[in-house]
Amino acid sequence: MNFVIIGGDAAGMSAASRAKRKNKELNVIVFEKTYDVSYSACGMPYNIADPARDMDELIVRRAEVFRQKQGIDLKVGHEVKKIDPKAKKIYGTSIQGEFEQPFDKLLIATGARPKSLNIPGTDLDGVFSLKSLEHGRQIKKYIKEKSVKQAVIIGMGYIALEMCEALRALDIEVSMIKPNPRFLPKMEQELAERIKQVVLSHGVQLYAGSNVNGIERKGEKLSVLSDDFSLDGDMVLIAVGVAPNSELAQDAGLELGANNAISVDRYFRTSNEDIYAAGDCADTYNVITGKKIYHPLALLANRGGWMVADNIVGKEKEFKGIVATSVFKVFELQVASTGLNEKQAQDAGFDPVSVTINSRSRAHAHPGSKTISVHMVADKKTGQLLGTQMVGEEGVAHRINSIAVALHANMSVDEYFGCDLAYAPPFSPVWDPTLTAANVLKKKL
Amino acid sequence: MNFVIIGGDAAGMSAASRAKRKNKELNVIVFEKTYDVSYSACGMPYNIADPARDMDELIVRRAEVFRQKQGIDLKVGHEVKKIDPKAKKIYGTSIQGEFEQPFDKLLIATGARPKSLNIPGTDLDGVFSLKSLEHGRQIKKYIKEKSVKQAVIIGMGYIALEMCEALRALDIEVSMIKPNPRFLPKMEQELAERIKQVVLSHGVQLYAGSNVNGIERKGEKLSVLSDDFSLDGDMVLIAVGVAPNSELAQDAGLELGANNAISVDRYFRTSNEDIYAAGDCADTYNVITGKKIYHPLALLANRGGWMVADNIVGKEKEFKGIVATSVFKVFELQVASTGLNEKQAQDAGFDPVSVTINSRSRAHAHPGSKTISVHMVADKKTGQLLGTQMVGEEGVAHRINSIAVALHANMSVDEYFGCDLAYAPPFSPVWDPTLTAANVLKKKL
Repeated sequence: MNFVIIGGDAAGMSAASRAKRKNKELNVIVFEKTYDVSYSACGMPYNIADPARDMDELIVRRAEVFRQKQGIDLKVGHEVKKIDPKAKKIYGTSIQGEFEQPFDKLLIATGARPKSLNIPGTDLDGVFSLKSLEHGRQIKKYIKEKSVKQAVIIGMGYIALEMCEALRALDIEVSMIKPNPRFLPKMEQELAERIKQVVLSHGVQLYAGSNVNGIERKGEKLSVLSDDFSLDGDMVLIAVGVAPNSELAQDAGLELGANNAISVDRYFRTSNEDIYAAGDCADTYNVITGKKIYHPLALLANRGGWMVADNIVGKEKEFKGIVATSVFKVFELQVASTGLNEKQAQDAGFDPVSVTINSRSRAHAHPGSKTISVHMVADKKTGQLLGTQMVGEEGVAHRINSIAVALHANMSVDEYFGCDLAYAPPFSPVWDPTLTAANVLKKKL
Repeated sequence: MNFVIIGGDAAGMSAASRAKRKNKELNVIVFEKTYDVSYSACGMPYNIADPARDMDELIVRRAEVFRQKQGIDLKVGHEVKKIDPKAKKIYGTSIQGEFEQPFDKLLIATGARPKSLNIPGTDLDGVFSLKSLEHGRQIKKYIKEKSVKQAVIIGMGYIALEMCEALRALDIEVSMIKPNPRFLPKMEQELAERIKQVVLSHGVQLYAGSNVNGIERKGEKLSVLSDDFSLDGDMVLIAVGVAPNSELAQDAGLELGANNAISVDRYFRTSNEDIYAAGDCADTYNVITGKKIYHPLALLANRGGWMVADNIVGKEKEFKGIVATSVFKVFELQVASTGLNEKQAQDAGFDPVSVTINSRSRAHAHPGSKTISVHMVADKKTGQLLGTQMVGEEGVAHRINSIAVALHANMSVDEYFGCDLAYAPPFSPVWDPTLTAANVLKKKL
């Protein structure tokens, strides 16, 4: 049986490895457009921040290992151009010319691409996006060769902020610009404001609420043009989110779902039962709402790859979905969220109430304690816990997971408040900050 | 109505504050034997470690505040000697002489005391235990005044280890001794061994498996006598666990439960419906086994105090119980556990299987990553998750909480594995170490 996979990063290679491990007889054939497979894309900002590190450190497993030790037929530099679901074949091109490959089962794991901006100048030398390892290499090389001293970042999402921190670590002046006047609009305003103040304290210029009309070369510099001012830099990074690479699937007549990602069922099957999709090109289910969402993060991609492999070689396993947990670091802050914010809760038909509290990362009088801000959302009608956002200098990144588990378990705020969480003075107040938030929120229910 | 409370620390003062806040008409009368109320006992080792800090920093709220701002009739230096449940009166002594006090509802919150050793010499000058704030003051004063350079700790539990770290921070030589040859016997051996090696690497002498026959004065030093050797020190700390102060309750004819603590129901009521008990003097329910356990930790004491107050002033709230979550720090390690270990699982009638895995605290290739060891226990018959222990230099203390919540939710290992946990390179591998453990454990089910 031919198990053919389009795309050789998280979802694709997870599926390939697991399928081959579970069934050695399977022909597992992977087509990857670039020459990089299986790398930690999320690690790129931290790698760029450190000139001593090689970008290729982020490669988790090299192509030769997949080929020689795992027996996977991995073809890099092979771009798939067309899927024919009826003929059960894919068609593409490589430097050797055109190729075609019949499949019994197909996995589309084409990932996502940085959203492009429809403005002039995005093709100028020194204008970058960051998604593939090759992007990372180019940015790192450019910073070194051009001795970049000043950069403009278009966008203020988590990749933009991680790159902002990386560039500041290299002592590069950074200004950031985006049209939406709200900083981190999905976050509760008090928490977003705290993050913004930390970013500003690191000498970053923020222009939220400013249009981006184009990029021009201006002598040695690039200039990002807004309505009545412009921002100069030696380089420009466009980081305004990602879009799923779903065109190949769409052209093959497969259904698209949330955010125009490939629509998949709870078995990661597309609208064609022999074709699966996983990773950043596919949508998924939200456990809390039961509805489809697009959540292009690494754990879901890895998990999706594994589940596709399990479903192909063994008995089918149903995927319950995600609760949209995420965390990022920006300067000294850890920023985490899981579940729904108030607006998402309202849109999903809940009657949300919320609280925002400040607690501490360590016990009363324990040295080094920092403020942890917790925003918690619940449904007024049922008392169901719906989501939590958290910001702090320590103790946030893993603390969010206890809420994520509670959301998977469909817990009420009262049930969460009853949980026996860990306490020791160096790590927490007696009442964990999430318990304190739950206690305050209970009073509003 | 008179709500009388015996004991003015975590459970007692939590109950007093909350009862008075919820019903201003209530007479809340607290009798505390010592002159300290409402302090963070758990913070004492960290305070002792820093000569610049005053022990009284650990006082969370002073007696005057309870009296003047909260209207609580708080009597310190008042030792209750007898409870008469029929007459609904308590009797005791203070420096003013004898007193008696009628009650409508009574809360016994007498806490626990350090277990004593039945050996000669425990009353010698320089031999200490650590439980009350006064103990902490005495130890700190003694270390300073006697310029302690060498100490012997009898016991190797978490307080013994926290004190070991504190004394090493003061550059005091430490040796530790106990009869049980197994270091941290409730922990899985590989994890216990890792902790032991770290303790040894800090120059601590460990004598596990050695009897402690007595303590003698030997010139300027104290000498802890074992069978064929002795350990010298300027001071000796006895830290061999705590015992509940349940004698007052027992003398009043109230039932005792787990570990001879006062037996309470799910409303923190003793066998007399007008008498409650909470904190380190009372037992509680284990959510996983449904059985009684003794778990003298701060969160349960605070929670118990609140719940007693709620039950007295409002509608009764049932307490589901605990999962026995705990965490402590010892040198660079965080050590956490929740739920049952294999032996406890077996004793409770489960058919336990377990795995121990090593994972990382940060993503592939992320600098500063440390090893996280995870030991996870499940029931072979049902797949139910039963418990987890974890050791690592970072990312352990809060990570245990996601397992604790899963235990409260009665999740299977498979359900836990399906949880959407947070990932970013500075904080975790893509697969959280607890997910990796669950994945490996699934294969044994």
